[in-house]
Amino acid sequence: MSTTAVKAFGAAAADADLKELNIDRRAVNAADIEIEILYCGVCHSDLHTARNDWGGTLYPSVPGHEIVGRVTKIGSDVTQFKVGDLAGVGCLVGSCTTCESCKNDLEQYCANGWVGTYNGPDKYLGGYTFGGYSEKIVVEEHFVLKVPTNLNLAAVAPLLCAGITTWSPLRHWKVGKGSKVAVVGLGGLGHMAIKLAKGLGAEVTLFSRSANKEQDALDLGADAVVISTDDAHMATVSGKFDLIIDTVPYVHDVNPYVATLNTNGTLVLVGNLGPLDPFLNTVPMILGRKSIAGSLIGGIAETQEMLDFCGEHNIVSEIEIIKMQDINAAYERMLKSDVRYRFVIDMSSLKA
Amino acid sequence: MSTTAVKAFGAAAADADLKELNIDRRAVNAADIEIEILYCGVCHSDLHTARNDWGGTLYPSVPGHEIVGRVTKIGSDVTQFKVGDLAGVGCLVGSCTTCESCKNDLEQYCANGWVGTYNGPDKYLGGYTFGGYSEKIVVEEHFVLKVPTNLNLAAVAPLLCAGITTWSPLRHWKVGKGSKVAVVGLGGLGHMAIKLAKGLGAEVTLFSRSANKEQDALDLGADAVVISTDDAHMATVSGKFDLIIDTVPYVHDVNPYVATLNTNGTLVLVGNLGPLDPFLNTVPMILGRKSIAGSLIGGIAETQEMLDFCGEHNIVSEIEIIKMQDINAAYERMLKSDVRYRFVIDMSSLKA
Ligand SMILES: [Zn+2]
Ligand SMILES: [Zn+2]
Ligand SMILES: [Zn+2]
Ligand SMILES: [Zn+2]
Repeated sequence: MSTTAVKAFGAAAADADLKELNIDRRAVNAADIEIEILYCGVCHSDLHTARNDWGGTLYPSVPGHEIVGRVTKIGSDVTQFKVGDLAGVGCLVGSCTTCESCKNDLEQYCANGWVGTYNGPDKYLGGYTFGGYSEKIVVEEHFVLKVPTNLNLAAVAPLLCAGITTWSPLRHWKVGKGSKVAVVGLGGLGHMAIKLAKGLGAEVTLFSRSANKEQDALDLGADAVVISTDDAHMATVSGKFDLIIDTVPYVHDVNPYVATLNTNGTLVLVGNLGPLDPFLNTVPMILGRKSIAGSLIGGIAETQEMLDFCGEHNIVSEIEIIKMQDINAAYERMLKSDVRYRFVIDMSSLKA
Repeated sequence: MSTTAVKAFGAAAADADLKELNIDRRAVNAADIEIEILYCGVCHSDLHTARNDWGGTLYPSVPGHEIVGRVTKIGSDVTQFKVGDLAGVGCLVGSCTTCESCKNDLEQYCANGWVGTYNGPDKYLGGYTFGGYSEKIVVEEHFVLKVPTNLNLAAVAPLLCAGITTWSPLRHWKVGKGSKVAVVGLGGLGHMAIKLAKGLGAEVTLFSRSANKEQDALDLGADAVVISTDDAHMATVSGKFDLIIDTVPYVHDVNPYVATLNTNGTLVLVGNLGPLDPFLNTVPMILGRKSIAGSLIGGIAETQEMLDFCGEHNIVSEIEIIKMQDINAAYERMLKSDVRYRFVIDMSSLKA
């Protein structure tokens, strides 16, 4: 299969800084679209993969799965895109297409394993996939999203992961006008959860460990902020929420949040992969038919729905634009939660 | 308010055997029904309350909330029952009637606290309620159930707690034809879960720690039994179930069962009130949008629906009939799980 070498930025090892390198992109097949990448959001998963925090990283590793750009080539079977169109690519660039999940537009739960935009198995070139920290990417049309033309393109990029990760549970648990939603944690995911839940008509509360995020949350559209370390304040929202989106990316006690769920309420974990420590107490769950659930990004159709919704409602991420060469410093700042709320790489910097 | 003394069986203290004693029942008010109790099932909650295992037991304590009998008196506002009708009473004899839960037929999640059939606050006589280990009970019509006339009456009694406790999650999580349901634990609750799930058209699997319950489970209607201590056997049902009803009444590891949930599957805890120890791992929950939930008995309308369904489908509990005087020995056998699958007291023994 013919390939083209393109510039990218990646890590040669778990303890190495990201640096410029070359990767191969395949020539477009009949179902493929080639995209010149204009902006790429910086997700915590990028950092964890580059540093092999979860194990299994293949090197060199080129992260990036919040991709927006412009179509530069299309294969002969492509029907929904033409050269020059805006296009987006999120966390998924492949799935089996035949399992129950795939047939139900839930590619992210593919029974046979979906293909990650980076560090996934590349069935075309062998080896593994390289992500959006690169000049170009070639993706099957099914996994390419249409991007609204009325939005700040750089600020659209984080919708492809942070946006859909919070949109999917909001939709699955049927949030709408009158729903009472709480969001735990105000980072890349949390700030999108507030905006999207508000866009859907919900009353939105942010749980925060400290009062200093209150004005930010209100500016983002939250109706209220509750200080989760203040028991008396927490008691004022006991039994209130239909849905809680918990975006906290580390081990934490969810029991105080369960107490704020209404009968039939659900707390959805989207950030913390690991044990629920301390122990989850089942008593309030049984006494109020409450649920704890997990949710992973979203399917392709649902991602398109979210992008269309954001276009209609003028919703984008709050971002700080960086150059590709600033990525290592950006990772250090992310580890200190020093970003409001998402770094986005201006990929023109890679050409310079 | 005028009262009548009736014979009952109760515990005078946490460490005392249950013995015969007298309690007062109120005269029927306009909305009340008086029932002569014919049979009363023996629930684990009875034992835990009599022995103050959960704290808060008031003495003397008269347990029993799986009550069937015959209407002996009705108040002037009663419209759905007449003297001589069969009638049932379950775990609830009161609720606020005005909160969101009550208005939605979810009295068991009453925001202002429902009234338990025993050890609950008695707004009529003051003090607290006495349960079904007694000759008669007086209950507001709203909390009295109609009992199908075509079933073995003694075997209907356990439907009022064990039946509804498993029926409610089966219905809430929309089990029907083609659903894949698993049941953890084969006791009073578990055997009803198998029968009811099967009645609803599901494919039903029992998880059991040992092979010696296999034939019993198949006889009850299960399609398969999986030995939960056998990792290879467990692997054969990985990702299979839409709903798991976990009836195990003590702390246990739910993680192996989560692995057997399908995408969007839910494990519902109905037996274990307490911490989820060892830690619940969120990784499979996030990767498959799986949920852990709790569920408590059921509402009155839902209990009636279940009784009607059991009448239509000829479903009753498997029981062993005992005399009232055998209750202390029965408790000891229950603690050793030596009962297939529910003791039911023939209340005529109390008159003897
Ligand atoms: Zn991401
Ligand atoms: Zn698939
Ligand atoms: Zn019970
Ligand atoms: Zn109520």
